[in-house]
Amino acid sequence: MPKVLVAIAEGFEEIEAICIIDVLRRGGVEVIMGSLDTTLPIKGAHGVIMHADRPIKGLSADDLDMIVLPGGWGGTKALASDTTVQALLKEMDAKGKNIGAICAAPYALEAAGVLKEGYTCYPGIEDDLRTGGFEGDKHAVVESANVMTSRGPGTAICFGLAIVKKLLGLAAYEKVRDGLLAGYCETL
Amino acid sequence: MPKVLVAIAEGFEEIEAICIIDVLRRGGVEVIMGSLDTTLPIKGAHGVIMHADRPIKGLSADDLDMIVLPGGWGGTKALASDTTVQALLKEMDAKGKNIGAICAAPYALEAAGVLKEGYTCYPGIEDDLRTGGFEGDKHAVVESANVMTSRGPGTAICFGLAIVKKLLGLAAYEKVRDGLLAGYCETL
Repeated sequence: MPKVLVAIAEGFEEIEAICIIDVLRRGGVEVIMGSLDTTLPIKGAHGVIMHADRPIKGLSADDLDMIVLPGGWGGTKALASDTTVQALLKEMDAKGKNIGAICAAPYALEAAGVLKEGYTCYPGIEDDLRTGGFEGDKHAVVESANVMTSRGPGTAICFGLAIVKKLLGLAAYEKVRDGLLAGYCETL
Repeated sequence: MPKVLVAIAEGFEEIEAICIIDVLRRGGVEVIMGSLDTTLPIKGAHGVIMHADRPIKGLSADDLDMIVLPGGWGGTKALASDTTVQALLKEMDAKGKNIGAICAAPYALEAAGVLKEGYTCYPGIEDDLRTGGFEGDKHAVVESANVMTSRGPGTAICFGLAIVKKLLGLAAYEKVRDGLLAGYCETL
């Protein structure tokens, strides 16, 4: 089964993090919730404390099939300035591995220089990014080379499903989508 | 600001719990994540550990404007057999306070005898309930007297938004809906 790191930093957006983690685990993906240091309980943007599984430090791109960043400005700024996360993003990109980010978090991809032309993010965040090809609300999820991006809490289940489709194929995607009652993702 | 208890028991569905908590807090609702005992870290159905704010024991209906139950079979069965939660549901109902449940959790409302005619739940769970008026997928959220019910992870943001509308009114609902990028809730 594919292995995906979801990087969790204080101030992460709870709906976005949980939708990605829950949807991927429903698909059978091995999800690692990774923290920036050795403190595993981490507080989200709306006060919910969740436990990471392990620190990100010590993981290499060779251990992973994908890294995904949830949004929330606090978490995003931490991910954009963390040297371990930034180095891992560069290593993943150099090895052609999959990278994903939602909401504000494409900002942390741009900081690492791995965001591709053709992306989306939370409305307004594009003003802080220099990469061309902002696609706004044309699609809930935008895929450009090895990088997948999405818009915000309301598209987070659909983003998780798009990752399931990418990593596991259409049949797994359809099964998880139907179990979630998320047929609306087809229309976003 | 209204005060809402979200009851969290081991095996709770993470997307449903977090969507309700996050959406309500975005609206300004005071949300208490309540646990069945004094152990505050609680593991969800997909392995994510979250911290409750306090035990439910000691809270009375007079302290609360609403109680909401997330789904997940493990969590639902625990909520249905917990005497404190069952007594609180009966007290809330007797005092005409708001009650909500999503996915499997209407089962725990039926156990307390507070589920009203006219409800929805995760597909198939209705077979374990005796209350008439199962409305299936006609609406993402069904309101019947003081009880609101919803269907599953894919409708959880919309359920949170419907609670915001109920407790805080249309303007708050629209503001939170737009911030979430959850306009699709209008079509479910």
